[in-house]
Amino acid sequence: MSDILPACGAFGPDRVHRLPVRVYYEDTDFSGIVYHARYLHFFERGRTESLRALGIHHSELAAAETPLAFAVRRMAVEYVQAARVDDILVVESVFRPARGARLMISQRIERDGEVITTAEVQAVCIDNNGRPKRPPRDMADRWRDYVVADG
Amino acid sequence: MSDILPACGAFGPDRVHRLPVRVYYEDTDFSGIVYHARYLHFFERGRTESLRALGIHHSELAAAETPLAFAVRRMAVEYVQAARVDDILVVESVFRPARGARLMISQRIERDGEVITTAEVQAVCIDNNGRPKRPPRDMADRWRDYVVADG
Amino acid sequence: MSDILPACGAFGPDRVHRLPVRVYYEDTDFSGIVYHARYLHFFERGRTESLRALGIHHSELAAAETPLAFAVRRMAVEYVQAARVDDILVVESVFRPARGARLMISQRIERDGEVITTAEVQAVCIDNNGRPKRPPRDMADRWRDYVVADG
Amino acid sequence: MSDILPACGAFGPDRVHRLPVRVYYEDTDFSGIVYHARYLHFFERGRTESLRALGIHHSELAAAETPLAFAVRRMAVEYVQAARVDDILVVESVFRPARGARLMISQRIERDGEVITTAEVQAVCIDNNGRPKRPPRDMADRWRDYVVADG
Repeated sequence: MSDILPACGAFGPDRVHRLPVRVYYEDTDFSGIVYHARYLHFFERGRTESLRALGIHHSELAAAETPLAFAVRRMAVEYVQAARVDDILVVESVFRPARGARLMISQRIERDGEVITTAEVQAVCIDNNGRPKRPPRDMADRWRDYVVADG
Repeated sequence: MSDILPACGAFGPDRVHRLPVRVYYEDTDFSGIVYHARYLHFFERGRTESLRALGIHHSELAAAETPLAFAVRRMAVEYVQAARVDDILVVESVFRPARGARLMISQRIERDGEVITTAEVQAVCIDNNGRPKRPPRDMADRWRDYVVADG
Repeated sequence: MSDILPACGAFGPDRVHRLPVRVYYEDTDFSGIVYHARYLHFFERGRTESLRALGIHHSELAAAETPLAFAVRRMAVEYVQAARVDDILVVESVFRPARGARLMISQRIERDGEVITTAEVQAVCIDNNGRPKRPPRDMADRWRDYVVADG
Repeated sequence: MSDILPACGAFGPDRVHRLPVRVYYEDTDFSGIVYHARYLHFFERGRTESLRALGIHHSELAAAETPLAFAVRRMAVEYVQAARVDDILVVESVFRPARGARLMISQRIERDGEVITTAEVQAVCIDNNGRPKRPPRDMADRWRDYVVADG
């Protein structure tokens, strides 16, 4: 069973992280297309896997002496095309230069190279009480290696 | 604004708790009807509100010296009719005699008196580590007042 | 049973629609707070109920000769405070002057008068094939009565 | 991009279909573990991918002359262990002998060989109006090749 693993995506040489996701029943609504809030789930999976590629795991952060989690502070989403059940989508995540404690990520969901949705995301690390915290230094270091200056 | 509150339902003289819920976009899938897992959300809201009617709040349990939460152990669900967007459903919850630390709840979702879904639920209190705990005594006492012997 | 209904909110004299919602288990994540995508569900419920207050129902639109549904085109969300399980939130929806076929809605989620999340939403009517359609005239007429010029 | 695909799992020589899934933020609740209704999403993904392995696609069924979809009629779920964020789970699906129009599937979610949740599922094909329909003959034929008699 050790040979079957969920897709975790990977960074390309262009420092863009790409994660493939499948659209299931759960993602759609009665209008026949993907429910708009579900794209935020796909984007979140993309951020999670891009961090995992850097060796950063939510479960470890949560179990640390000062437990940390990520919280989205701001998000601008554009819905360009509709996706449908069975579609294979690719979630692209690009790290932007951090602004203080804020992590900036540009994301895009594509289907066969066609843009479905885009998101500009501002996230922060928070402690157990929801207070913003600087990300751990080693995370910040690894993050920096993948930063792409704003387009 | 103090006069607008979400529906929390109520126990009837028959000791059945009834909570009305509306079906929204988020609850449906591309086949045009409510996604089967969403009924478990409705059932959970019904259990939460029936407990709230007894003065039992998840947020208080979670903030207690020994934090407690509820976990479902077993659930048998029958899907009888399909519900659709805009439908008003009523979630009925009936407490059954507890079996040791296990809470037994019979639930039913209706639309205009017609059965949509039924569920037989077995739940337990768990601590932070997922270990089963006896429910607090005052909760057990209040629970007992509403028990309806199995049909 | 006819006397128990889900909350559908109401427009105030300020032409702001207010819908109360309860935070349940389903809305939270392991970091202890409401999952960021869930606020989009709350916002959607607010839009749905504000339209229902105008006599516009998704189920009727979907069953019309030319079936119509609403689709979000653009959304800017700001997460100001965190909400938690058991919280009662109020979803405020304000209709803005339409721009062509686009419906503009300003939304805000509050808890006891404190801002939790805000959203600027651009939506359109779409047909079965996802093509944008002008909203039905009577809907547009009723909408206009509630428009509040941008702040 | 053609080389990155979501995991779709596979049937083993034991005619058990196995699909790996990752637990994300979206799957958890404030008690720190996976929300009980989310396992039904994982089970549904398992059923979808086991059907896809047979060449049966929801999108094709929905686009057929007589559009078909699957609906769950009955489900008995047992929650054995809790799963947590970042966990890799494997969804096992076993086709059981059909009973008339009803498709019987035994499912299990494991983590490193440990059982997390089990489900006995009864599903049917339905048409646009929610009426049960016999599955298409070629689907039934392919299904039969993978049936495992009840344990």
